[in-house]
Amino acid sequence: MNKLGLHGNVWAAGWSHDECARAIGNTAELGFDLVEAPALDPSLIDVAFTAKQLEKAGIGITFSLGLDAETDLSSGDPEKIRRGEARLGDVVSMTRDLGGTHICGIIYSAFQKYMVPATKEGIAGSVDALRRVAEKAAASDIVLGLEVVNRYETNVLNTAAQGVDMCKRIGAPNVKVHLDVYHMNIEEADMEAAIIDTGDYIGYFHTGDSNRGYMGTGSIDLPRVFKALVRSGYQGPITFESFSSAVVGQPLEGILGIWRNLWEDGYDLARHAKMYTESQLKSAHEAHNCGRKGLPF
Amino acid sequence: MNKLGLHGNVWAAGWSHDECARAIGNTAELGFDLVEAPALDPSLIDVAFTAKQLEKAGIGITFSLGLDAETDLSSGDPEKIRRGEARLGDVVSMTRDLGGTHICGIIYSAFQKYMVPATKEGIAGSVDALRRVAEKAAASDIVLGLEVVNRYETNVLNTAAQGVDMCKRIGAPNVKVHLDVYHMNIEEADMEAAIIDTGDYIGYFHTGDSNRGYMGTGSIDLPRVFKALVRSGYQGPITFESFSSAVVGQPLEGILGIWRNLWEDGYDLARHAKMYTESQLKSAHEAHNCGRKGLPF
Amino acid sequence: MNKLGLHGNVWAAGWSHDECARAIGNTAELGFDLVEAPALDPSLIDVAFTAKQLEKAGIGITFSLGLDAETDLSSGDPEKIRRGEARLGDVVSMTRDLGGTHICGIIYSAFQKYMVPATKEGIAGSVDALRRVAEKAAASDIVLGLEVVNRYETNVLNTAAQGVDMCKRIGAPNVKVHLDVYHMNIEEADMEAAIIDTGDYIGYFHTGDSNRGYMGTGSIDLPRVFKALVRSGYQGPITFESFSSAVVGQPLEGILGIWRNLWEDGYDLARHAKMYTESQLKSAHEAHNCGRKGLPF
Amino acid sequence: MNKLGLHGNVWAAGWSHDECARAIGNTAELGFDLVEAPALDPSLIDVAFTAKQLEKAGIGITFSLGLDAETDLSSGDPEKIRRGEARLGDVVSMTRDLGGTHICGIIYSAFQKYMVPATKEGIAGSVDALRRVAEKAAASDIVLGLEVVNRYETNVLNTAAQGVDMCKRIGAPNVKVHLDVYHMNIEEADMEAAIIDTGDYIGYFHTGDSNRGYMGTGSIDLPRVFKALVRSGYQGPITFESFSSAVVGQPLEGILGIWRNLWEDGYDLARHAKMYTESQLKSAHEAHNCGRKGLPF
Repeated sequence: MNKLGLHGNVWAAGWSHDECARAIGNTAELGFDLVEAPALDPSLIDVAFTAKQLEKAGIGITFSLGLDAETDLSSGDPEKIRRGEARLGDVVSMTRDLGGTHICGIIYSAFQKYMVPATKEGIAGSVDALRRVAEKAAASDIVLGLEVVNRYETNVLNTAAQGVDMCKRIGAPNVKVHLDVYHMNIEEADMEAAIIDTGDYIGYFHTGDSNRGYMGTGSIDLPRVFKALVRSGYQGPITFESFSSAVVGQPLEGILGIWRNLWEDGYDLARHAKMYTESQLKSAHEAHNCGRKGLPF
Repeated sequence: MNKLGLHGNVWAAGWSHDECARAIGNTAELGFDLVEAPALDPSLIDVAFTAKQLEKAGIGITFSLGLDAETDLSSGDPEKIRRGEARLGDVVSMTRDLGGTHICGIIYSAFQKYMVPATKEGIAGSVDALRRVAEKAAASDIVLGLEVVNRYETNVLNTAAQGVDMCKRIGAPNVKVHLDVYHMNIEEADMEAAIIDTGDYIGYFHTGDSNRGYMGTGSIDLPRVFKALVRSGYQGPITFESFSSAVVGQPLEGILGIWRNLWEDGYDLARHAKMYTESQLKSAHEAHNCGRKGLPF
Repeated sequence: MNKLGLHGNVWAAGWSHDECARAIGNTAELGFDLVEAPALDPSLIDVAFTAKQLEKAGIGITFSLGLDAETDLSSGDPEKIRRGEARLGDVVSMTRDLGGTHICGIIYSAFQKYMVPATKEGIAGSVDALRRVAEKAAASDIVLGLEVVNRYETNVLNTAAQGVDMCKRIGAPNVKVHLDVYHMNIEEADMEAAIIDTGDYIGYFHTGDSNRGYMGTGSIDLPRVFKALVRSGYQGPITFESFSSAVVGQPLEGILGIWRNLWEDGYDLARHAKMYTESQLKSAHEAHNCGRKGLPF
Repeated sequence: MNKLGLHGNVWAAGWSHDECARAIGNTAELGFDLVEAPALDPSLIDVAFTAKQLEKAGIGITFSLGLDAETDLSSGDPEKIRRGEARLGDVVSMTRDLGGTHICGIIYSAFQKYMVPATKEGIAGSVDALRRVAEKAAASDIVLGLEVVNRYETNVLNTAAQGVDMCKRIGAPNVKVHLDVYHMNIEEADMEAAIIDTGDYIGYFHTGDSNRGYMGTGSIDLPRVFKALVRSGYQGPITFESFSSAVVGQPLEGILGIWRNLWEDGYDLARHAKMYTESQLKSAHEAHNCGRKGLPF
């Protein structure tokens, strides 16, 4: 069974003690199995405090982040690559200390709107750096999920097939593809086919909808997404992510272009996401079984 | 808010004391607002016993039926029309006695596979008969819902537009269209447009899926159905209907062609239907509101 | 590349000399590769005349039929089975004489609304009879396509998975599954998954739409159907089928329940179907290729 | 009937004599009614030469552009607003001289990734400036289409409802909303509802797909888009837009994030787009008519 997770930005912009306690407490109260904490700047996270909250709530944690221009592994600049590896190394340590199992997001390039295409050298440098990070992560059984995002957030990995290609180049069993319906909706030629073809390379999965609001209030054919997930055999975490100008602040507001108030009540939003996800997963499993029956006699 | 209902055939083939108690009890336990009882033969329903069960469970009731060849209001045969009116009159009385609000189904023709098209005289006769039945029903504030069904179950009303046309000919404010996603999936040129265009004429609504199994295990775009319902402004009952060879017996098995075991556990099926319906209705309401916001300043 | 075909009932109810010439001439004029001729009663088809028309038009032919109660291979009645085999044998001979490659339709049971489920013995008898017919067909390189149809037209094969099961029991390489979007829309839990899972067992394919009118005027997600066909690797015929009360007469009108005038101009309908099919097939191929590209360097 | 148009970037990155002749010639050869010329920098367009090509080809022209940071009407900076008005004034003159009927695109703000939300003053300034431009355009019967685009290309108009709101504030009958499926797919809560609700305010329409490649190779439910367009009663231009790294260069490549080679053969792409559009528009009209028929007698 897939563990169901919730992104911390549903509750708060940051990870102060108050925000951390609220994010973890509410996530657990709604019955989710894990919280995904934003680790853009890991130094802002109080590991000991977070550990206590997780233990109290009885749920797990994953981390997601995007690198920035100064830590861009795809920059071809040795100094930036060095800083990027250090940043990811810090997140690996923190994840290990909190018993986390996944580190996800745009960890292969900067999380920004590029103005020129990626280069051959840039990609090769990112592959090499991630191979080293993966080795460190493997020592603590941590999976790295390369998040495939849309053209406005990276110039490196925009499709699942590119993600699989990059995983193969890195060649570490704990480097997987992190798929997100919001980005797939923009880039994939066929979302279902992409999920099924990625198959065993899927390491993490983000739900949501096309405008990043309530599930079912956008243009993504979510029922078919869940059917594809079941067909792919994916057993890992499924985490709901949503952003509203009512919660998110800078720098995320600017990078992500969150100009609209899509919701104000994160509790209502998250409760609905859980019900939506569970009902669709159940439908997908029933359809999968029902469609395979032969003749009655 | 729409009341959510559940069809009795999810629980049992008939309406014996045991079946009645189980259908009403389970329906209430799952949190539905009403049970839809099959009234193909109203003489088989023990009104006093049913009333007691409803009171105990605290839910309401609606009735659905299809006429048969001997009571076919569209037959053009005065004797059959007389018997059909009598049958519907009995159901009106029973519904009134149980505090029911809706009588639905194929109450304008036989519920059967016809071999020839409907005739002008047949339709006209059915219109006249239903006008009389509607008058009696109006005295007890009962709505008649003309169920629009697929070509294999009637030759009279196969599309919502035909249903509206028939309501206008009858001309009674308590005669409405009963739409059902299973039938619409076969006959409508555009299910969403049909729901929106039927608008105030919708009097009753059946959910389910294209093969009459679990919601979401067929080919109907259910998220769009719920979006259309919200856009139509429909406030009446939404009832889930499903048939499996594990429960349904003759004559329904034969008329409906229920050859497959699509599910065995009606409780699991109905619980899922409620969660599915509630999550989609919520999405539809949120999308409706979210899509209408203008500029922030 | 898939050959594109057109069902003869777009042009005419029967196969008189005039109807045959018109059906073949118009089909060829619109650029289709083959005509599918209705062979409910093969004795009504003038083979020599049809051969001349096909040669003149430069297109191929396939045949489709449904057996009737008197020739029902699933009846368990040796006499009816004998008659059914004889009927199919006649169609095999006719197909061979016309250079046809496929015989399709409900050739494993009667083409009718059953009132009781299929039996174990009935299915076994049909399997045995079809094994014998397949042997004769194989001698002329003719494929038999077992058409999977909805519950109102047979009680034997309602899903693709059942069709594959039956093919395996017959065990002849020239017996395949004939899928039809109209029926799949009613019965399959997941039309796309059914097409992909049937895979190499697909031997013939019918397009159309959910109400049997113009493509795109129903509830079937046709773009996804074509994407699934491309993913399945299917290379065989894709034939468009549509029925309107403006053309079809008895007995088909009655069996199929064609109560509505969905179109009057078969030429306009078929021209559109070809354009629709070609544009969707092209999209599906492009999506298939585009979705597989890895990193640019 | 809607005129069908084609975006010039299918053929070339710019509008040199050679590019202009090729764009107009090929567009006409494929049977489109108009070409949409990119007017980011109107000074690069040779009006006399373009006029000659249009006359020779017998098709019409529309212009689209996005303002830049220095001409940003929503900047609140009087000098930038003055420059933006001047830029749009030049495009109005050019359009008038070429007999063009529509000027579209991001003409109310810069065409760029903003890092902060729009301001009240910025929006008000843009409204005032556009009112003045609209007056000039009205003198030549030119429609201004405010293109609603995704969050990464503006912070002002991201949804159709916001577009209608802005049109109302401007209050000029020749200022309309320009909708584009690519952007709607990201931002709208319900693409169909947005199209229908925008209704008479729709002034221009862009088709394409979610990754800006071949129609039907993305996640947009294009059949429903065309159904909504028909229901909305929209009679204006429908223009196909697509971008591949094989053609587009800087600055567009950078602003739009065109990192992938989605196609190389613009001719094949555009021919397919026309066939796709015509087949879907026809389906939508047939569905619209077919779904409204009442009883046969």
